[in-house]
Amino acid sequence: MERQFNYDIMKVIKERWSPREFSNEKVPLEDLKAIFEAARYAPSCFNEQPWRYIVAYKDDDVEILRGLLMKGNSWAKKAPVLAIAISTNTFKRNNKKNNYNKFDTGTSWGFLSLEAKKRGYDTHGMAGFSKKKAREILNIPEDCDIIAMIAIGKRIKSGNEKPNTRKSLEEVMIDINFFKERN
Amino acid sequence: MERQFNYDIMKVIKERWSPREFSNEKVPLEDLKAIFEAARYAPSCFNEQPWRYIVAYKDDDVEILRGLLMKGNSWAKKAPVLAIAISTNTFKRNNKKNNYNKFDTGTSWGFLSLEAKKRGYDTHGMAGFSKKKAREILNIPEDCDIIAMIAIGKRIKSGNEKPNTRKSLEEVMIDINFFKERN
Repeated sequence: MERQFNYDIMKVIKERWSPREFSNEKVPLEDLKAIFEAARYAPSCFNEQPWRYIVAYKDDDVEILRGLLMKGNSWAKKAPVLAIAISTNTFKRNNKKNNYNKFDTGTSWGFLSLEAKKRGYDTHGMAGFSKKKAREILNIPEDCDIIAMIAIGKRIKSGNEKPNTRKSLEEVMIDINFFKERN
Repeated sequence: MERQFNYDIMKVIKERWSPREFSNEKVPLEDLKAIFEAARYAPSCFNEQPWRYIVAYKDDDVEILRGLLMKGNSWAKKAPVLAIAISTNTFKRNNKKNNYNKFDTGTSWGFLSLEAKKRGYDTHGMAGFSKKKAREILNIPEDCDIIAMIAIGKRIKSGNEKPNTRKSLEEVMIDINFFKERN
């Protein structure tokens, strides 16, 4: 089934999906920096900006992140850029727990994915990699949650893959009586 | 200090910030639906789409959500639309805990905020509201995390407010040796 759009939303949102078939075409550093520039400008709780991205684009570096991938994600080994989204879990202002760090990092990743699309690149976020090993070999401190691996590059237009579908708008945009009426 | 952009990123990302001074100008339902249509198309772990938005745009409904705001966020009472982002914390496929539900909901909120900006609307996400009271009066089930209140509308261009700044790109986009070299 193809994606259906009921409203004329942003082109980059309509065209963004998460492919598995990446070509090995490099991403110029200027594009890559612009993509992470976009990630910087997400809103966050108390403007904490808890996100950080460990970005590998040189062959040796990418190879190290490839080594963290679980079998199910070995398709991602073809991508020319791999990054790990991490997020500090305490507020700098008072050292207290930040319960919004994952939410805010998700927003930042959203901005990143759309800026990539605008520049003709595809992205795919993954949960399937060894966080334990990542923490060890990259020396990631305990106050940083290791969240997602991100593949960045260009998809191969083989026709083998299709964007997946979504729940209906009615399921997602609900009114204040929704749960009351269900029970 | 004004925001500095080193790269020519998407206009909606450059222009989006979170104002407090909202006008009471209504948001037409068609725009509102398009904004939440954008939220639907965020990527998510196993395509779970854990997000849901309780959206209030009719006066009586908005009034109910206004009642949940903490004092520090009373500016948001002027906004014509208030929504609460909630997120199921278990996977539908196997009922197991979804550790990505907040991250994914953040991505969805990011898409929503940019589609709003594209249509000339401003958004502001807030943590400061009574989640306990929200759960009670809206009957939100326990498997849904109550995450953020979102104000949607048009900001008043009074000149009293300015977008806040961000960490440098170098702090956010780091290489695989970053933490090793720090210790």
